[in-house]
Amino acid sequence: MRTAWQSLFVTTGLLMARAAMPAEAAAPGTPAPAPARSMAEILAASPASAWRPLNDEHTLYMEMPGGRVVIELLPALAPRTVANIEALVRLHYFDGLSILRVQDNYVAQWGDPDGVRKVPDNMQKLAPEFSVPLGAAAFTQLPDRDGYAPQVGFVDSFAAARDPASGMAWLTHCYGAVGVGRDNDPASGNGSELYAVIGNAPRHLDRNVTIVGRVRQGIELLSSLPRGTAELGFYDKPAQRVPITSVQLASAVPAAERTRLEVLRSDSPTFTAVVAARRNRKDDWYLQPAGYIELCNVPLPVRAVAPTTP
Amino acid sequence: MRTAWQSLFVTTGLLMARAAMPAEAAAPGTPAPAPARSMAEILAASPASAWRPLNDEHTLYMEMPGGRVVIELLPALAPRTVANIEALVRLHYFDGLSILRVQDNYVAQWGDPDGVRKVPDNMQKLAPEFSVPLGAAAFTQLPDRDGYAPQVGFVDSFAAARDPASGMAWLTHCYGAVGVGRDNDPASGNGSELYAVIGNAPRHLDRNVTIVGRVRQGIELLSSLPRGTAELGFYDKPAQRVPITSVQLASAVPAAERTRLEVLRSDSPTFTAVVAARRNRKDDWYLQPAGYIELCNVPLPVRAVAPTTP
Repeated sequence: MRTAWQSLFVTTGLLMARAAMPAEAAAPGTPAPAPARSMAEILAASPASAWRPLNDEHTLYMEMPGGRVVIELLPALAPRTVANIEALVRLHYFDGLSILRVQDNYVAQWGDPDGVRKVPDNMQKLAPEFSVPLGAAAFTQLPDRDGYAPQVGFVDSFAAARDPASGMAWLTHCYGAVGVGRDNDPASGNGSELYAVIGNAPRHLDRNVTIVGRVRQGIELLSSLPRGTAELGFYDKPAQRVPITSVQLASAVPAAERTRLEVLRSDSPTFTAVVAARRNRKDDWYLQPAGYIELCNVPLPVRAVAPTTP
Repeated sequence: MRTAWQSLFVTTGLLMARAAMPAEAAAPGTPAPAPARSMAEILAASPASAWRPLNDEHTLYMEMPGGRVVIELLPALAPRTVANIEALVRLHYFDGLSILRVQDNYVAQWGDPDGVRKVPDNMQKLAPEFSVPLGAAAFTQLPDRDGYAPQVGFVDSFAAARDPASGMAWLTHCYGAVGVGRDNDPASGNGSELYAVIGNAPRHLDRNVTIVGRVRQGIELLSSLPRGTAELGFYDKPAQRVPITSVQLASAVPAAERTRLEVLRSDSPTFTAVVAARRNRKDDWYLQPAGYIELCNVPLPVRAVAPTTP
């Protein structure tokens, strides 16, 4: 028996196919628009060129008891900080550390809760990269207005913002963004303590913290953890901490053990079509299209790909 | 030993006190502004009149193995739907049902997964209340612009939106909002299946679903549940479902067993000051105030109050 709950929100789920609704009647004299397509239909029809593999040279695998969290870093928008993190990873800095803070509707944070692991002297201080010159990186602007930044959009399939007056750009605090914890000293954010956003986008953190990347897979391993009951969501008992088995660069993992993912290119026509479809949803469920999409509600679709055989 | 992590984000946590930073130097000839106060300081100095108790006549206690979720309903913006839900609660409709869907960065949903519990015939269909005439309810407008609605703000300490052209208002899909699941038929949302937002505000759902209230306490009991692995985050095995012991109206619970909470009045000067402080954070940690606050990032502070003695 098909019960009502099975179709609740069926159209709002990622990659769920729905019958397309015909577009509204066009005004007289204008060409009939193409029927509205759902995101799933758009993705299903996408060319291979609309996707790129994750960059294994800058992708981290954080292994936890529940599975693997895949984090892609973007050196273009935080070159020194990403280099520092990758150097720490090569030193196995994070192996055996733990998730030490989970604050509801905010962040999950990991690092060295007891402060016993040594960050090499020459890596302890690092000038922050709250924003950087955009340089050669392509910025795909989202036409929808934003309250927190002059312009928002995407750099290489990462949510970002830009100030055309200054030429500076920065990654934004959307769900799944990974940033660098720091103390009051801005140079204290050396990458040895990281967090992922697990709640409503805390965009007020933008340009106050260096964001280095985004969780491409496995965010639910962090977002579903028990919330810490100490102040700010810290775990108040060591036994509550969630162990991190290891953090490795994907490129350091044997090919057969890698998680092969592709992300939709934010500079592809397919992505533009996805954004348009999500801005104005037209299907059997949605009655009132929003006509707008907020930066952090734009999906950045990821798909698994079969391993290549040599 | 004080380790660096203990102060990470210390200023972004709810109700954490920080030393106030002096305001910037005033322009010549203008009076010196008062020093910036943190939200914690503002709340600590708030008069009793800035707070109101939850309305026990329209507050639900959802009892789960992990504890109590406290949901306050707002009849003013969904009168028929709230009445239907409260009637179902009085019939003990939800007792023994379960959380049946947890979709990451989206919703936790509860109801009757097996479709065996009978909703009375006269309660099965209900005209939706996606938006309603605002009527006598006071709307405290947030001056910050919004992409999804002509105006946003607060009605009785619930996040809401309004269209001044039509005079219609609606509750918005912010974190913790509670809405009514429905099938494609808009009248199918009778209140027997409800959801709470546990991710980035899915504002595109606004005016497509009837929102009835907001979780005032215990949202973490829903947001930290394991994500369902079936499509749309449904639990695919009955054993995965999380039981709901009971859902009761607060007013039906003995006084000694009630959860006594107060919420900051959204029409109070204290609330205005809180919003201003959060729009432009000034402290030892924040270097770049946002100058803007998005509706769903506005805190709606709740505090526990001691039970009154007769």
